[in-house]
Amino acid sequence: MSAHAEPLVVGVDFGTLSGRAVVVRVRDGAELGSAVHEYPHGVLDRALPSGRALPPDWALQVPMDYIEVLRTAVPEALRDAGADPRDVIGIGTDFTACTVVPVTSAGTPLCELPEFADEPHAYVKLWKHHAAQPQADRINDLARARTEKWLPRYGGLISAEWEFAKALEILEDAPQVYAATRHLVELADWIVWQLTGNYVRNACTAGYKGIYQDGQYPSRDFLAELNPDFGDFVVDKLAHPLGQLGAPAGMLTAEAAAWTGLPEGIAVAVGNVDAHVTAPAARAVEPGQMVAIMGTSTCHVMNGAELREVPGMCGVVDGGIVPGLWGYEAGQSGVGDIFAWFVDNCVPYQVADPHEHLTNLARDQRIGEHGLIALDWHLGNRSVLVDHELSGVVVGQTLATKPEDVYRALLEATAFGTRMIVDTFIDAGVPVRELVIAGGLVRNDLLMQIYADVTNLPLSTIGSAQGPALGSAMHAAVAAGAYQDIHAAANAMGSMAKDVYLPIEVNVEAYQELFEEYRMLHDYFGRGGNDVMHRLRARRKVQKGQK
Amino acid sequence: MSAHAEPLVVGVDFGTLSGRAVVVRVRDGAELGSAVHEYPHGVLDRALPSGRALPPDWALQVPMDYIEVLRTAVPEALRDAGADPRDVIGIGTDFTACTVVPVTSAGTPLCELPEFADEPHAYVKLWKHHAAQPQADRINDLARARTEKWLPRYGGLISAEWEFAKALEILEDAPQVYAATRHLVELADWIVWQLTGNYVRNACTAGYKGIYQDGQYPSRDFLAELNPDFGDFVVDKLAHPLGQLGAPAGMLTAEAAAWTGLPEGIAVAVGNVDAHVTAPAARAVEPGQMVAIMGTSTCHVMNGAELREVPGMCGVVDGGIVPGLWGYEAGQSGVGDIFAWFVDNCVPYQVADPHEHLTNLARDQRIGEHGLIALDWHLGNRSVLVDHELSGVVVGQTLATKPEDVYRALLEATAFGTRMIVDTFIDAGVPVRELVIAGGLVRNDLLMQIYADVTNLPLSTIGSAQGPALGSAMHAAVAAGAYQDIHAAANAMGSMAKDVYLPIEVNVEAYQELFEEYRMLHDYFGRGGNDVMHRLRARRKVQKGQK
Repeated sequence: MSAHAEPLVVGVDFGTLSGRAVVVRVRDGAELGSAVHEYPHGVLDRALPSGRALPPDWALQVPMDYIEVLRTAVPEALRDAGADPRDVIGIGTDFTACTVVPVTSAGTPLCELPEFADEPHAYVKLWKHHAAQPQADRINDLARARTEKWLPRYGGLISAEWEFAKALEILEDAPQVYAATRHLVELADWIVWQLTGNYVRNACTAGYKGIYQDGQYPSRDFLAELNPDFGDFVVDKLAHPLGQLGAPAGMLTAEAAAWTGLPEGIAVAVGNVDAHVTAPAARAVEPGQMVAIMGTSTCHVMNGAELREVPGMCGVVDGGIVPGLWGYEAGQSGVGDIFAWFVDNCVPYQVADPHEHLTNLARDQRIGEHGLIALDWHLGNRSVLVDHELSGVVVGQTLATKPEDVYRALLEATAFGTRMIVDTFIDAGVPVRELVIAGGLVRNDLLMQIYADVTNLPLSTIGSAQGPALGSAMHAAVAAGAYQDIHAAANAMGSMAKDVYLPIEVNVEAYQELFEEYRMLHDYFGRGGNDVMHRLRARRKVQKGQK
Repeated sequence: MSAHAEPLVVGVDFGTLSGRAVVVRVRDGAELGSAVHEYPHGVLDRALPSGRALPPDWALQVPMDYIEVLRTAVPEALRDAGADPRDVIGIGTDFTACTVVPVTSAGTPLCELPEFADEPHAYVKLWKHHAAQPQADRINDLARARTEKWLPRYGGLISAEWEFAKALEILEDAPQVYAATRHLVELADWIVWQLTGNYVRNACTAGYKGIYQDGQYPSRDFLAELNPDFGDFVVDKLAHPLGQLGAPAGMLTAEAAAWTGLPEGIAVAVGNVDAHVTAPAARAVEPGQMVAIMGTSTCHVMNGAELREVPGMCGVVDGGIVPGLWGYEAGQSGVGDIFAWFVDNCVPYQVADPHEHLTNLARDQRIGEHGLIALDWHLGNRSVLVDHELSGVVVGQTLATKPEDVYRALLEATAFGTRMIVDTFIDAGVPVRELVIAGGLVRNDLLMQIYADVTNLPLSTIGSAQGPALGSAMHAAVAAGAYQDIHAAANAMGSMAKDVYLPIEVNVEAYQELFEEYRMLHDYFGRGGNDVMHRLRARRKVQKGQK
């Protein structure tokens, strides 16, 4: 540490399209510098780097892209902060989840082995890889039939996005990849492995994505009934000693120090998840404060004092967000992604900032003036239906319908989606008193007011524009021993602006009526009234497959 | 007539956006020249020429635009044909319907009087003016309650597009306009009035749009029960001596001769409707030959040997298409209009011919590969639901959905709409054995094959690219005495290419499954399963009205 300098920590947030590093002062959480690096390969959803085509619903990534973030964004953030690297006492990371890769015993992703370079199942399966829905369906059917006691902890449904569905997909579709897999690793842990040389499985993803509850994974019996060759999956490829959030996973290796420009031997925090680290960054860790991290997707995390079973939630994990409270998680698979798809594919003109342009055009509309109602399921529905074979709907177009009309209807649809989640929590006895918004979409003031009006909740906003990276830095500070626990770090380093958007009564009433329309369509298309979306998707897969 | 020349006739087709004149040889129907003139004011659906804003669902036109067609397109067509005007022995016209305007006793549209220039109800109400749906609903409710015997002749529902709904709308929303109205005139007859100086009401629109059946209009009793001030509507403003199709309405006046460059005193045929004149132009006047005139909207006309009641048809009129047969009519309010709306509002790039571009992109898709199903109700549903407050739906979008996917889904949706109509006719005992396609959309070969596959019917195509104008010219030939009747003119002057598109069995099977999806959504949204479209539209009207 340099003379007279204050201690710093580095947080690195690995998002869907890019990684962001931030340099933070331990004392007060001041963000001194940051840098972003886009993944060179982005999301592989049409083809492998070799050109091999991918079926619908696939979403892969290339692990070396993450290393490139460490090599570029971390040194750039240090330069941007004008920081002396010797002042950095720890590094923390967060990742999308469930994002997994099969690796060798040395942690080498199988896609990096020449024999698997052209094998889709050997790559990183990103959270939004949705091709394992058939496996998820079987997991759910069997768990219900056997009344597995872990099932209610996940709202009654295990997602196609999670570890068991993705693992079973590898076993059944690429048995040679499965056979070569020593560990199926969350990228949250893989990146820490690269930094420390240690494989430590974080308690957060183990709980939320790995069905680890009350000290146990699903039983061998259960897995073998799914597929006889799957019985030993936990023992052979998944189970591994756990690390608690905020604990150190190890020390920065010489190699990783060379990548990042950070001092060898500093503390590296146990891996964590983007949404979960954001709650303390927003200083929102009390029961009733639902943090919505709104970006390409939205993740909702909230602490609760008691264990409740919330239908369709992603999961509830003891200490899943902060120690001592039940951490609840829910989510919407597509939010900003849907808006981006719309401006890229459905707007008949090009302007510098289409989101701002459409928002400005939509801003002065009266509620319902566009005559539309939409379902925000273009990427499926994570909560509360847990069905990634659902798809989008727009009802009400006329020849007078303009792009800003549909854009606004899509904004509203995502707000209705959040309202469904809030209502489900409340109905299950988990009170929600406030929405705390983090993530890039917080900048859209129209969207924020719509959320306040649709949910009839006050909206607070996180102080930081880079909440996950800040949250990771805070976990680094705890791992380095600068704070006793994450609560103390949150108090010192986190920030939130209270009640920035308040519900407007007349809007609340108007949206209540439109929400009833949303709910009716939600139940019709999502709860068995008409399974047309499943049939359309099945046909689409067959027809694409025959080309 | 010039020496050694052959006799010619002129047909003028007044469409939704433009008028087209064609010069035709009487002997064989050869089209020697043509010209198109766009209406300077187009469709007024947002504001009057004065800038006064119009509510949703309005669609007006300016009558002098039609006169401009006579003054420009007719002389241009004569020049294009290299024709000596002295060889022209007659002129015939057709118009969109129900398109009406309130006029003085001299035939002056009220919108041309200074006191009504800023009054929307004084303008031409175009066929697709849909603001009179509340009036249509009351007409239907009362007719059902009184079991009016004319109601089944219109499939059980009177359309908001037709004369009585539009007239009642004027009475109730602009009583001063109603009071000043001497005649409510179909533009099909108004244009003939301008050519001849005579007001002759044509039997076709009187039957289809004016509820004239078995020699009678709806009774004074019925009308007074709708609104006490409406009781004398028929006597005061609607009833007028009828002219039969193909009969002369009078002779060309000196003034109209000066406009058109045609000889004064030649025969002018009784007014007619675009769709209905097309059937003889396609030489398709036998029972079982359904003619679909596919342009901005689609009109289906077919002759039947017997009177049947077809639910949701537009109407059945004795001799409504040709003498001696029952003329059936049905329709889809939006077809090409929907495709045009889509390319104008929903495609993120500009190419020279977006329809061709999207069609080429969509052409090689396997059926259902796009994963979408759409309802083609962006302009409401004329047949078989007769509900202009319905609206469009697209189900199944994902983040992989491309513009060509939705475009193809919209093409297919209109084909499913035609299939609903065909099935309804067959179920009512009116056989349909062949589709004969006329209108601009016949050029889209992908669309045509989809229609053949969806309906499982052979598709023939009209020989002429300007069927309505040719059909009007044929009626002119009959009015001028060159042929004894329209059958003889059709034989000599009409043409059709037989079985140009045949159903492909494997496609028929695939589309049968998708049609079942369409039908389920059709009934859910259109037959009371969920009246969300009506509620959304009502809210849209209220909110627009409050701005």
